[in-house]
Amino acid sequence: MSAKPSRQVLSLAARATAARRRIAGGVRRTPCLPSRAIPDDGGQLWFKAENLQVTGSFKARGAMAKLTTLPTDVPVITASSGNHGMACANAARTTGHRLTVVLPEGAPAEKREGIAAYGVETILHPGDSGLAERHARKLAGEASATYLSPYNDLDVMSGQGTIALELLEQMPRIDNLFVAMGGGGLISGIGAVMKSVSPATRIIGVSTAASAALAASIEAGRIVETTHNDTLADGCAGGVDADALTLPLAQEVIDRVITCDEAQIADALREIAWTDKMLVEGAAALALAGLRADRAAFAGAVNVVVLCGANFDRARIAPVLAGGA
Amino acid sequence: MSAKPSRQVLSLAARATAARRRIAGGVRRTPCLPSRAIPDDGGQLWFKAENLQVTGSFKARGAMAKLTTLPTDVPVITASSGNHGMACANAARTTGHRLTVVLPEGAPAEKREGIAAYGVETILHPGDSGLAERHARKLAGEASATYLSPYNDLDVMSGQGTIALELLEQMPRIDNLFVAMGGGGLISGIGAVMKSVSPATRIIGVSTAASAALAASIEAGRIVETTHNDTLADGCAGGVDADALTLPLAQEVIDRVITCDEAQIADALREIAWTDKMLVEGAAALALAGLRADRAAFAGAVNVVVLCGANFDRARIAPVLAGGA
Repeated sequence: MSAKPSRQVLSLAARATAARRRIAGGVRRTPCLPSRAIPDDGGQLWFKAENLQVTGSFKARGAMAKLTTLPTDVPVITASSGNHGMACANAARTTGHRLTVVLPEGAPAEKREGIAAYGVETILHPGDSGLAERHARKLAGEASATYLSPYNDLDVMSGQGTIALELLEQMPRIDNLFVAMGGGGLISGIGAVMKSVSPATRIIGVSTAASAALAASIEAGRIVETTHNDTLADGCAGGVDADALTLPLAQEVIDRVITCDEAQIADALREIAWTDKMLVEGAAALALAGLRADRAAFAGAVNVVVLCGANFDRARIAPVLAGGA
Repeated sequence: MSAKPSRQVLSLAARATAARRRIAGGVRRTPCLPSRAIPDDGGQLWFKAENLQVTGSFKARGAMAKLTTLPTDVPVITASSGNHGMACANAARTTGHRLTVVLPEGAPAEKREGIAAYGVETILHPGDSGLAERHARKLAGEASATYLSPYNDLDVMSGQGTIALELLEQMPRIDNLFVAMGGGGLISGIGAVMKSVSPATRIIGVSTAASAALAASIEAGRIVETTHNDTLADGCAGGVDADALTLPLAQEVIDRVITCDEAQIADALREIAWTDKMLVEGAAALALAGLRADRAAFAGAVNVVVLCGANFDRARIAPVLAGGA
């Protein structure tokens, strides 16, 4: 990264400070907890526990930050059967916006019901999640509604950046901050705040090898397509929009990218479960896997891992827990 | 319970307020988290998350409250291979007391090492935990040291009572407060504060059927011996001292006792794991099991369950997690 933060990074950091004032009514200030695994290298390991966030995911912040910029008589539409859908539903219940969530028809009934329980409209659309997203964008255009992107939006990113504002109060010093990378909204928001306020803190982006579009795009310096294989870190899977605002931000704020495979993610998930007694989603375990992948590089330092969420399918996680040492 | 709190209850509540000022340097203010299982009866379910307390147990509070009453040149001795031993070790590290922890020789090496890692002396003593305790009391007498009881001590109880002081700030209203019962230190401390400040809050003591000495003693109005069978809620197992200060306090502050069997505790443990994504010890699950045992009685109310800790043997809990629906 460059020595001084760019105007766009400083601007996003300021936007996060503004967002924090708006989101308090709908999200939680999560604790930063010391790991119960005491490192033997003199260092420290802490977890920013977004797994304890409302809706079980950091996405509650971005959705709330976005909706609080929109007049309440503007209908809003999104497409997500996962964390972003729940986050928008939670935010809309707080702000009073009329929200429609488009889900692919194959989405599990319990996910649709979980979103509908917030009192929002759900629509099942034929095909995969990509087609659901296109349908949601089309509906938004037809209805003069606002489409809510899960990451490609400066207000959403500013909401995720509030995590860093809390960390700056909770931790007197952070040497390395580990953040899982999906579309890049989380790491761009957090990184922009950190690089503006605590530039000595290194931002470590952690990518799942199975779906590494943002990592490949950072490497290439432009959005590139990659294959997307099944991954425990499913919250990080998928491509990056061709016009992604996150790419230049991520390029600037990330000091190092570490890529982890499925076995490494599973090991980290087990460590968090059996040592720190929390069940997290694969994307959260991914961030710890990044630290574990190169312990020597981070020895003796104050390391903070963002546990981004705790939403998972029990059938997927139970065998992972039962495995390993 | 009587309509007005007794002098002893009011006195313990005042002692808890004093303790809170002393323990802040060694323990954490734990969050009170809403369950992600939204009750369909219009009620609320919250967890006071002592599973996130330092040392993984509420006992950190009582130990810290006690040690901060003792001159730092008084050596202290206790006997515990479990939560109380860890709690005393954590407190002694903070206060600077010289601490010796006596463990039964059969205690797992990892437990001894866990306690020794705090920089305190450990002694292995032949026989069971009862003999270890007698040895610790004998050593204390010989060395003019202070023996630290895990529950039969007003300062320890006052430390546990700080949980209720935090809850009074965190929750505008609590209808029913569910607390697991072992020796009675936790429920006496919490109950004394609640009955002094929020007498409308009902205190529900939850006992494991496998080891119900305090429940039987409350029923009988005097300390009685019971059998002690193996239980998932091992943190609550064991007899009650013949001179237990907790009996009259528990009798006064508890509104209702509910007894749960192993299947009910296991069900509650699974609910906390798979719905609220936290792995807790059996004694913590026991408190939720009490609510689940009579949902109709607590429908539509603001219910708070104290999750007292998260220390367990993985080999014991893993099959429980894998079981059930």
